[in-house]
Amino acid sequence: MRGAVLHAPGDVRVEERDRPSLVEPTDAIIRLSATCVCGSDLWPYRGVETYDGPIPMGHEYVGVVEEIGEDVADIKVGDFVVGSFFASDNTCEICRAGYQSSCIHRVIMGSLGSQAEFLRVPLADGTLVATPGMPDPELIPSLLAASDVLGTGWFGAVAAEAGPGKTVAVVGDGAVGLLAVLAARQLGAERIIAMSRHEPRQRLAREFGATDIVVERGDAGVARIKELTSGLGAHSVIEAVGTQESMMQAIRSTRPGGHVGYVGVAHDVQLPGDELFFSHVHLHGGPAPVRQYLPELIDLIWNRKIDPGKVFDLELPLGQAAEGYKAMDERRAIKVLLRP
Amino acid sequence: MRGAVLHAPGDVRVEERDRPSLVEPTDAIIRLSATCVCGSDLWPYRGVETYDGPIPMGHEYVGVVEEIGEDVADIKVGDFVVGSFFASDNTCEICRAGYQSSCIHRVIMGSLGSQAEFLRVPLADGTLVATPGMPDPELIPSLLAASDVLGTGWFGAVAAEAGPGKTVAVVGDGAVGLLAVLAARQLGAERIIAMSRHEPRQRLAREFGATDIVVERGDAGVARIKELTSGLGAHSVIEAVGTQESMMQAIRSTRPGGHVGYVGVAHDVQLPGDELFFSHVHLHGGPAPVRQYLPELIDLIWNRKIDPGKVFDLELPLGQAAEGYKAMDERRAIKVLLRP
Repeated sequence: MRGAVLHAPGDVRVEERDRPSLVEPTDAIIRLSATCVCGSDLWPYRGVETYDGPIPMGHEYVGVVEEIGEDVADIKVGDFVVGSFFASDNTCEICRAGYQSSCIHRVIMGSLGSQAEFLRVPLADGTLVATPGMPDPELIPSLLAASDVLGTGWFGAVAAEAGPGKTVAVVGDGAVGLLAVLAARQLGAERIIAMSRHEPRQRLAREFGATDIVVERGDAGVARIKELTSGLGAHSVIEAVGTQESMMQAIRSTRPGGHVGYVGVAHDVQLPGDELFFSHVHLHGGPAPVRQYLPELIDLIWNRKIDPGKVFDLELPLGQAAEGYKAMDERRAIKVLLRP
Repeated sequence: MRGAVLHAPGDVRVEERDRPSLVEPTDAIIRLSATCVCGSDLWPYRGVETYDGPIPMGHEYVGVVEEIGEDVADIKVGDFVVGSFFASDNTCEICRAGYQSSCIHRVIMGSLGSQAEFLRVPLADGTLVATPGMPDPELIPSLLAASDVLGTGWFGAVAAEAGPGKTVAVVGDGAVGLLAVLAARQLGAERIIAMSRHEPRQRLAREFGATDIVVERGDAGVARIKELTSGLGAHSVIEAVGTQESMMQAIRSTRPGGHVGYVGVAHDVQLPGDELFFSHVHLHGGPAPVRQYLPELIDLIWNRKIDPGKVFDLELPLGQAAEGYKAMDERRAIKVLLRP
């Protein structure tokens, strides 16, 4: 089968890979209907994260089940399924507490490479959620978004305790940040401030529910958030970048007693203990337990209550994955959908 | 009047200071019944925190109101009162959200020096809580503990979401750590693990409700907590020291999705963003909003439900404050009560 492989920074090639087969009796093999490029794929693509040798890429996926292992009971061949970027058993104590991305048996899907025609999904019963039937084609981008960026933005909004009566600020205008705006809106937030200086992203943020746009960043961005909140800061701030600057911007934009939900994968971040101590914020985040939210998110998408698929502003055949990476790296595209 | 003044690291002297008088119409002047030395007083005493010139010391206090400003309405002359280490208006939006120690009008009491005969308390109506009557003398140590160490341990336990069904670990066996054990017990925690290698402190921890003692610290301490919790870590961990080692010990002892409540004043702490991200813990803490808990804590003490005053294992006249500092610095005493 064909699949995307990263050979060196900036060098993604779609080439022949072995078609996956069942390894464990709890595995399923799916034929991908769509996959995509993630902001976090850009870290190794840019050489910020190192790795050994050529690596298969991709961890977002929707598709049709082709084959199941003998211990798979709930997922059937022919199901259309959505899964998350961590396979999880969904039965351990950590999963039951809602943290499937820290499941004691978790498998990181990125190592299996979903930017391909077929994908092996470990722990299929715990990981995959079947849709009520075969989706209309126009629903596929939104279902694919649920696999990571929607679920991650949602977790950011939950971790930041976005909700009725709250002013929510979102740091980062990538797909996750934009979908955190959508999540905050769904969770009932009163006011949603998107921090973005890019006009097309601002427009999408407003479509998803942003009430205010702040174009400043860093200290100036913090000052602007304070201005908009009687000098106190937002109740809830979602961080969706993962840099030192964005984390400090998020913490400093939050009022004492408020909540920071951080979902940007942290790179070279060091949080100063004394500032954090006196900030009085709540800090929570990490790899989103998307599995927890999938049933609810699929339901919202299936019933056309939300349209998170709008974050895909470029669609390419899998064979042109390299161009997809390039477009996202250069910020010409918010998020790129790939058709195997 | 006489009051303790720090002249240089290790050099605390009780000397003549100006008796405070009303400055603002919202002030009260109290005659101290008891005061004490705080673990955080040891930071400047040890020269870890710097300061300019001689500084009056102390921020914990109980006493009788001697005089009130013309705008003070709720607190009366003759009331026996307990207050916290931050004066707060208790009416601003931050106070109403329960974060009085980040009140927009807060005044840090340490700058006024409560290790003295008299103390000026700003924002008296918002800061002070009167007891139902004159307390029996044996209640005074417990009421004094409520002023800081009990309230701080309580906040740590609340921030760590200690409660029914939870396993709680406490890092730090100073007065705050020990009272965090008491708080976790009051909040209904199922299992409370005190981390301490000092026999008298272990004994007090058990009296306050600890079910297990762990003597290891650092990585070995983390390993022992994991052993006691099916490899997962505690649900709730209270950090009551404020060093890099203690913060990392707390974070690493917490299961994914669990809560770290940190109340040790952070000194030279840098939290690695990537480890925090993948730890999946909730992090909350800072200067405890003791004012929030004072009515409840006074009630528990008044009705003899709790006896936090047991943390005072050395009582001295104010004139011997220097010996009190020395005893705590050398860990000969857990906490020293001073009688003006």
